[in-house]
Amino acid sequence: MTDAAVRPTTPATSTRTPAGGAPTAAHTAEEAHEPRIDVAAVTDLLLGTWADTRRTAREMIKDPAFWRIEGQPMPDHRERVLSQLQLLVDNDGSRRAFPEEYGGLNDNGANLAGFMELVLADPSLQIKSGVQWGLFGSAIYQLGTTQHHEAWLRDVIDLTLPGAFAMTETGHGSDVAAIGTTATYDPDTEEFVIHTPFRGAWKDYLGNAALHGKAATVFAHLITGGVDYGVHCFFVPLRDDEGNFLPGVGGEDDGVKGGLNGIDNGRLHFDHVRVPRFNLLNRYGDVAADGTYSSDIASPGRRFFTMLGALVQGRVSLDGAATTGTALAEYIAITYANQRRQFDSGSGTDEVVLLDYGKHQRRLLPRLAQTYAQFFANDELLRTFDGVFSGRTDTPTERENLETLAAALKPLSTWNALETIQECREACGGAGFLAENRLVGLRQDLDVYVTFEGDNNVLLQLVGKRLLADYAKQFKGADAAKLARFAVSETAGKLFHGAGLRQFGQAVTDLGSTARSVELGLRADQQHELLADRVQRMIGDLAAALRPSSKLSQDDAALLFNAHQAELIEAARAHGELLQWEAFTDGLEKITDDGTRQVLTWLRDLFGMYLIEKHLAWYLINGRLSTQRAASVSRYIDRLCVRLRPHAQDLVDAFGFEPEHVRAPIASGAELARQDEARAHYAALADSGEAPATEKSLKKK
Amino acid sequence: MTDAAVRPTTPATSTRTPAGGAPTAAHTAEEAHEPRIDVAAVTDLLLGTWADTRRTAREMIKDPAFWRIEGQPMPDHRERVLSQLQLLVDNDGSRRAFPEEYGGLNDNGANLAGFMELVLADPSLQIKSGVQWGLFGSAIYQLGTTQHHEAWLRDVIDLTLPGAFAMTETGHGSDVAAIGTTATYDPDTEEFVIHTPFRGAWKDYLGNAALHGKAATVFAHLITGGVDYGVHCFFVPLRDDEGNFLPGVGGEDDGVKGGLNGIDNGRLHFDHVRVPRFNLLNRYGDVAADGTYSSDIASPGRRFFTMLGALVQGRVSLDGAATTGTALAEYIAITYANQRRQFDSGSGTDEVVLLDYGKHQRRLLPRLAQTYAQFFANDELLRTFDGVFSGRTDTPTERENLETLAAALKPLSTWNALETIQECREACGGAGFLAENRLVGLRQDLDVYVTFEGDNNVLLQLVGKRLLADYAKQFKGADAAKLARFAVSETAGKLFHGAGLRQFGQAVTDLGSTARSVELGLRADQQHELLADRVQRMIGDLAAALRPSSKLSQDDAALLFNAHQAELIEAARAHGELLQWEAFTDGLEKITDDGTRQVLTWLRDLFGMYLIEKHLAWYLINGRLSTQRAASVSRYIDRLCVRLRPHAQDLVDAFGFEPEHVRAPIASGAELARQDEARAHYAALADSGEAPATEKSLKKK
Repeated sequence: MTDAAVRPTTPATSTRTPAGGAPTAAHTAEEAHEPRIDVAAVTDLLLGTWADTRRTAREMIKDPAFWRIEGQPMPDHRERVLSQLQLLVDNDGSRRAFPEEYGGLNDNGANLAGFMELVLADPSLQIKSGVQWGLFGSAIYQLGTTQHHEAWLRDVIDLTLPGAFAMTETGHGSDVAAIGTTATYDPDTEEFVIHTPFRGAWKDYLGNAALHGKAATVFAHLITGGVDYGVHCFFVPLRDDEGNFLPGVGGEDDGVKGGLNGIDNGRLHFDHVRVPRFNLLNRYGDVAADGTYSSDIASPGRRFFTMLGALVQGRVSLDGAATTGTALAEYIAITYANQRRQFDSGSGTDEVVLLDYGKHQRRLLPRLAQTYAQFFANDELLRTFDGVFSGRTDTPTERENLETLAAALKPLSTWNALETIQECREACGGAGFLAENRLVGLRQDLDVYVTFEGDNNVLLQLVGKRLLADYAKQFKGADAAKLARFAVSETAGKLFHGAGLRQFGQAVTDLGSTARSVELGLRADQQHELLADRVQRMIGDLAAALRPSSKLSQDDAALLFNAHQAELIEAARAHGELLQWEAFTDGLEKITDDGTRQVLTWLRDLFGMYLIEKHLAWYLINGRLSTQRAASVSRYIDRLCVRLRPHAQDLVDAFGFEPEHVRAPIASGAELARQDEARAHYAALADSGEAPATEKSLKKK
Repeated sequence: MTDAAVRPTTPATSTRTPAGGAPTAAHTAEEAHEPRIDVAAVTDLLLGTWADTRRTAREMIKDPAFWRIEGQPMPDHRERVLSQLQLLVDNDGSRRAFPEEYGGLNDNGANLAGFMELVLADPSLQIKSGVQWGLFGSAIYQLGTTQHHEAWLRDVIDLTLPGAFAMTETGHGSDVAAIGTTATYDPDTEEFVIHTPFRGAWKDYLGNAALHGKAATVFAHLITGGVDYGVHCFFVPLRDDEGNFLPGVGGEDDGVKGGLNGIDNGRLHFDHVRVPRFNLLNRYGDVAADGTYSSDIASPGRRFFTMLGALVQGRVSLDGAATTGTALAEYIAITYANQRRQFDSGSGTDEVVLLDYGKHQRRLLPRLAQTYAQFFANDELLRTFDGVFSGRTDTPTERENLETLAAALKPLSTWNALETIQECREACGGAGFLAENRLVGLRQDLDVYVTFEGDNNVLLQLVGKRLLADYAKQFKGADAAKLARFAVSETAGKLFHGAGLRQFGQAVTDLGSTARSVELGLRADQQHELLADRVQRMIGDLAAALRPSSKLSQDDAALLFNAHQAELIEAARAHGELLQWEAFTDGLEKITDDGTRQVLTWLRDLFGMYLIEKHLAWYLINGRLSTQRAASVSRYIDRLCVRLRPHAQDLVDAFGFEPEHVRAPIASGAELARQDEARAHYAALADSGEAPATEKSLKKK
């Protein structure tokens, strides 16, 4: 049954079989002397450190029970996704992150790697799982202590206890510190009173809140003894076994959304709801029976950020899922573009395959390079995450690096997902607009990734502030000699060594095989210098522009900052792009096969050039590129597109998707079959001698 | 009932009432000395030539029966939209374009102006109406002759005869000449045999095809006497009165789409279906009883393009609807941004209104300027259309101008719709993702506008070819003196005088009040020179690059062209931007009020700068801007944003939408009420003396 629905109807899904060695299509025959990539090896490379877990997850979701049904009405979709969560439990898919004593595997990297793949089945499944285990469960685990783990984790893991993560309010999203919900301690009863004092303080947009959540981890200002100790997290039961709200609890359904309609997002409000003192998740702050507050972290600000930092995994996971979703869209659009023909070349012969058009290459191939970079960058992010969360590298610096990395990468990959999936949809024309071909659904579901788990612009602003702080640190009490040493420090070893500001001339350990790009003075080390220098210079300029702040009133300083806000965000974006480029370059080092190395080096160059072209005006204004070299950037991109075009199918085949993951009729070989049928029809007609004459030929007579 | 659901719950929808004179919000009080726009006068200006018809249409769709119900399942949505079409008939909304003898009004411009507004009710309604009256009905009217009008137009107008427009095939979209469906004349029975010989020749993506269409205007190669006379249009009955397909006709439902799910798109196939000779829509080509073909247009190519050109109104209409839809999104996002607060400025006072953030202004205001330009440009396009279709200016040159204008403007406005609506959705955060706030639904519905009625890239390529042809014409047999004269020709009069290539130094009749921009050397005439010069130079460069074509084989010429395809499309886009800028500048001339003129001149300058910034690298590489002037462009945009910020609400209020058109809770005043409630809560708490102390203040003690 499964196979009949999604497996290709023709022998191969593409003109080349994924394993290579099969007959090449017409447009690649003449280039047979070119290097070829080892598709299977590239798949290993892209799946990265936790390739095995990813493969297990992909194998599991071949079961159609996990697939999104396009156009399914919201109520049915919500029930289906809930049942998929149970299926995930049954398949051992929910326990990887949790401690062994509760049936977990304590394997944080693998956990996220596995969850990310769920985007291929249904993004609603990925995000609802994220709500249950990555947010609700994680809050109990990361912010609670053993007593809380004992009380709830088992039920969380096996979905006996579905829950909501109640942080965001209607009135406050990104500014968590300003939420209005309060948890006031009552020493007489040893209870916290949870209260949402006005409409803007209602918890909002929460998955599992509209229907399925039996409890919630509620963020609220902890008030005891007349003092507000800032935002803490509380375990609050929501519904009884019949699904009715408990006394004092109320809510609303958020209704239909732009996507992710398999998730029951909703609002919650609390009218002086009492929970036992026990329900304070007290890892970072506690209240004694008499109401005395205590915390290991003295600074309220640092305590707050430590609590939020424990929840960074959402961003790590979105970065990976956005990348996988983008790759799927590219697989679909490029496979179609390799089969679909439109317009003959003017000489009356076969119509031209879409991907042979210059514009079509320009639309799709630089974005493919971007996606490759994201795979490499996400694996680095995942390893940083795993190091910190396993405790192996859990230092304040590494935690800060992790948070900065996640805040830099998640915006870029999620925005790119929307733009690239849209480009893929347009590149498939009307067929791309049909839900069955999945591009529109993917885009709808991924839309909210750019504003949730941290609004992209707010995240980039955080990164920008970190970069400014790094910049200031460089010069703190430094003499000239120290500055000089600093400028040449970190010249060896791992490139993607952290998230902080890069230096001029920072060494790149491997520059790939760059013979062809040398001609243009745009070799890998020059790409790196251009990208790194831009971040450095932008931050330097901003630091100079903001220097007067220290002498201004807080209001005037805020005004000055505001005037440069857009630039700061732009600088942070440049930094994220640099990190992605470095990760890609680093990834090239792991390749042993010459052909693969050559092709992926071209792809990395295309990524570098694509970034430089995007910011070409900046490079010109700041004297980093002459007009002549700048003009050559676009031409070089054109040439790289032509060079990579014969490898396009291999490069998307290397994502390793199987038909059960793709499920788009236009990428199933059906288009190739239609094209072949049409051409056979006209050939037979010509042979029969019954083809009508053209009017033109008639006039010639 | 209606009012309760959509009318604001607070006295005004915004901090200023549309009519002006009401209290200004805090952020505008200190700027009270600034010029203000006359909101009502600007509404008149934007609604343009057919303002009355637009107002009638907007009044009609205040009836909730016309409104899209978010999340409605596809089958119900389809039935609802069909019933809305009938409602449109009952409201005299379907007959404006048709001749008086069939109950029509013969008013082409008004017709399109009225239809465009339907996008505010439900884009599915706009497009399904377009299918019925703009495509199916129009094909009968424009491609048929009196006998066909007599036979079918009345039933088309009153919806007794719902129909599909069967041009596109699964295998061919933009390349209509290559469709596979044939209509072979059989002189024995005086019938045409309609046939789709292979799967790729099935008609596809057709509105009204899956369910409601009783007939279709089918495009097919007309074959008679063994000769293929090219694509013609035939009236083909599809279904009987019970809705069953007639013998030989078959089809499939296209199913769920990325949007526009109120329309029953589907596929049709024909197995030797016979229709009477009468059914050939024979205005441009006829077949006599004995099978003899005749046409007033000898050239098969010109005949083909004449037939297609008769259907240009779809593009004109999409340009306008995309603009109105974008304006609605901007109204919602800017109104919300004027009420929503997030993060305090650091001094512990009120949180900051979103639109006071530099980045937020940068995200929304240049796009607002773009939308204003589109309103002006669309009115010019509509007037050109009306001139040609009324017969007043129906010359080959004007027809060509009309087609080029439509092909240049529709891609820009439809792409801008998607980008701007998305920016608006992100600017509203999670609230923007809720269907009730309309942004996601608008974007989903408008998505396909960029690839239907002519794929945007294909349309721009057509424009590019026209510009190349114009360029070549300039130099045809011209001596130096003639060239010199040419360079200074057309120096007065109407700016937006046609669609063809602009000249250096072409005069601008009105440059607005530009005192403030003079300082930067970026006055209106300089903006115009930069924009016009860029088109001229790009086309000149392309002409030079393509010059060798004439000496190459057809295949090699195609290869050469392909290598420059992306640049040609880029040049056409630049041309479209120039046309929009000119239309905006032209529009300023109609303003009599000084304040309005001043503010809209700033807005026009913002649009010009926004375009120049987008292409800054080009201006630098081509020596059109020094690095110093280039650097000042972005700073100037920042300053214009600050200057326009106090006028943002006025500028979106001037779109003239009423609550029944907006229907987005976040733009209803609810957010302002929530903000007021929250601030009142904290003020009361402070007054009560029971507000908790902060931890910080505690430590100070």
